[in-house]
Amino acid sequence: MVAALSRGPGEILGRERIPTRTPEETIARLLSCFARASEEFGSPEALVVGTFGPADLDPASPTYGLITATPKPHWSQTDLLGPLQKALGVPAVFETDVAASLYGEVTWGAAQGMKHAAYLTVGTGIGGALLIDGGILHGIGHPEMGHMRVSRHAKDDFKGSCPFHQDCLEGLAAGTSMSQRWGIPAEELPVDHPAWEIEAFYLAQACLNLLMIAPPEVIILGGGVMHQRQLFPLVRAELLRLVDGYLAYEQLRGDLVNFIVPPALGDDAGVLGCVALGQRLLAGRF
Amino acid sequence: MVAALSRGPGEILGRERIPTRTPEETIARLLSCFARASEEFGSPEALVVGTFGPADLDPASPTYGLITATPKPHWSQTDLLGPLQKALGVPAVFETDVAASLYGEVTWGAAQGMKHAAYLTVGTGIGGALLIDGGILHGIGHPEMGHMRVSRHAKDDFKGSCPFHQDCLEGLAAGTSMSQRWGIPAEELPVDHPAWEIEAFYLAQACLNLLMIAPPEVIILGGGVMHQRQLFPLVRAELLRLVDGYLAYEQLRGDLVNFIVPPALGDDAGVLGCVALGQRLLAGRF
Repeated sequence: MVAALSRGPGEILGRERIPTRTPEETIARLLSCFARASEEFGSPEALVVGTFGPADLDPASPTYGLITATPKPHWSQTDLLGPLQKALGVPAVFETDVAASLYGEVTWGAAQGMKHAAYLTVGTGIGGALLIDGGILHGIGHPEMGHMRVSRHAKDDFKGSCPFHQDCLEGLAAGTSMSQRWGIPAEELPVDHPAWEIEAFYLAQACLNLLMIAPPEVIILGGGVMHQRQLFPLVRAELLRLVDGYLAYEQLRGDLVNFIVPPALGDDAGVLGCVALGQRLLAGRF
Repeated sequence: MVAALSRGPGEILGRERIPTRTPEETIARLLSCFARASEEFGSPEALVVGTFGPADLDPASPTYGLITATPKPHWSQTDLLGPLQKALGVPAVFETDVAASLYGEVTWGAAQGMKHAAYLTVGTGIGGALLIDGGILHGIGHPEMGHMRVSRHAKDDFKGSCPFHQDCLEGLAAGTSMSQRWGIPAEELPVDHPAWEIEAFYLAQACLNLLMIAPPEVIILGGGVMHQRQLFPLVRAELLRLVDGYLAYEQLRGDLVNFIVPPALGDDAGVLGCVALGQRLLAGRF
């Protein structure tokens, strides 16, 4: 986890990376970061939490602010927002980490000024967020895009790594899946290894399903696996092949270099997105 | 196509079913229906078109009101809204047929009062619409849910019937696909034919992908294929199996009889949805 204090996008006053251990230990360390920062810079006016999921984001729910059922040991049903907000005593936003990253990219990055955008993060797991008409899409909870279903690559007989669904998107295409399938971590696979073509096949299907369900102006692909830049042209080419001229959107013309993009804010998208959400909260736009 | 004149949900003053032939012939017949209805009941105050897609729904676009690239002969790039609106001279709403059906169900049917709902129509093709925060989701166009990708049933080697994508959802699960796969129309297959289990497997994946991308309070399954009521318990059971306890939504507790539902307005959902959209337009809520 990253604790950060900011006065704006160019003014991150301090940040600290904290390993995610038990809830008690981790929350205590977050609180001590905030206490030290407050002493040095003054009390913050807003708190924004961009959390791993699944989490309850509905302020009207009795379990608002909690991590719900997660395979992460000790974290199921943990109140993450409560103790932080109690200690700081300021208005708060509780969002998913990937929605925060998306909001950062919409405010200062690759989706700047857009009304409709998608963000998929491909790391040890796969998460996703959608901006529709300028607002973060929640529906009755929040997207869990890693667990959508896609069709299998003809040359792939890996059973899948998702503990819940085996061969859902995450089970076939997350970093964990790649390292289980090939026996070495994804980042150690050569650039011309067949793994990348199979990976692109799955990620292109995820992009296609987003296009067919909630068509965005741009799809940002972030997370550790996407540090492998050779994936971008492969995903773009596969997506064009899958769409096969069916959709007339101008965003789909050409080679998709402006449609399937890396995060412009890189791995800072999450922290900067929380800053942007805090500014929006303080501007009264929630 | 159905032309209807209404004063409200209980007051459909008249309706007429018109076969979809060439644009010239079909639009001329729609216009003559409206002319006769206006003579008898007075001029209408609003026009609502719930059209097959793909169509340009963006009022700011130079091709607003047109059917865009469709495999339907003669209809590509046809201006459908223009001639109707010119003849009637009233404010108009241009929507997809499935979004109109969804809006009908939200106003008077199975999703009454809900903020987030989905509608999938499974007929000769497959279409879909989403209501998010009370508004119809467009993104940069409109959903084309029939063309999402899903994973194949282990016992299904049918190549798929979609002229664009072969084995996308529509290519594997639309009525056209069923009749090509089994050699007889879907409605002639016995209730206990293995076809229904395979069909339910694909439709449950479509529902799952909606849940993982834009989670709704309810998913309404309409269209000709869904007249086979034995499909509903099969889709519900398969969806529960696919979710496998991963999501904590209260909507997913029990046997899903209130989550995967038929349209309460039946095949009237489209016409009534257009009426509801017209009332919303006249109330100034667009």
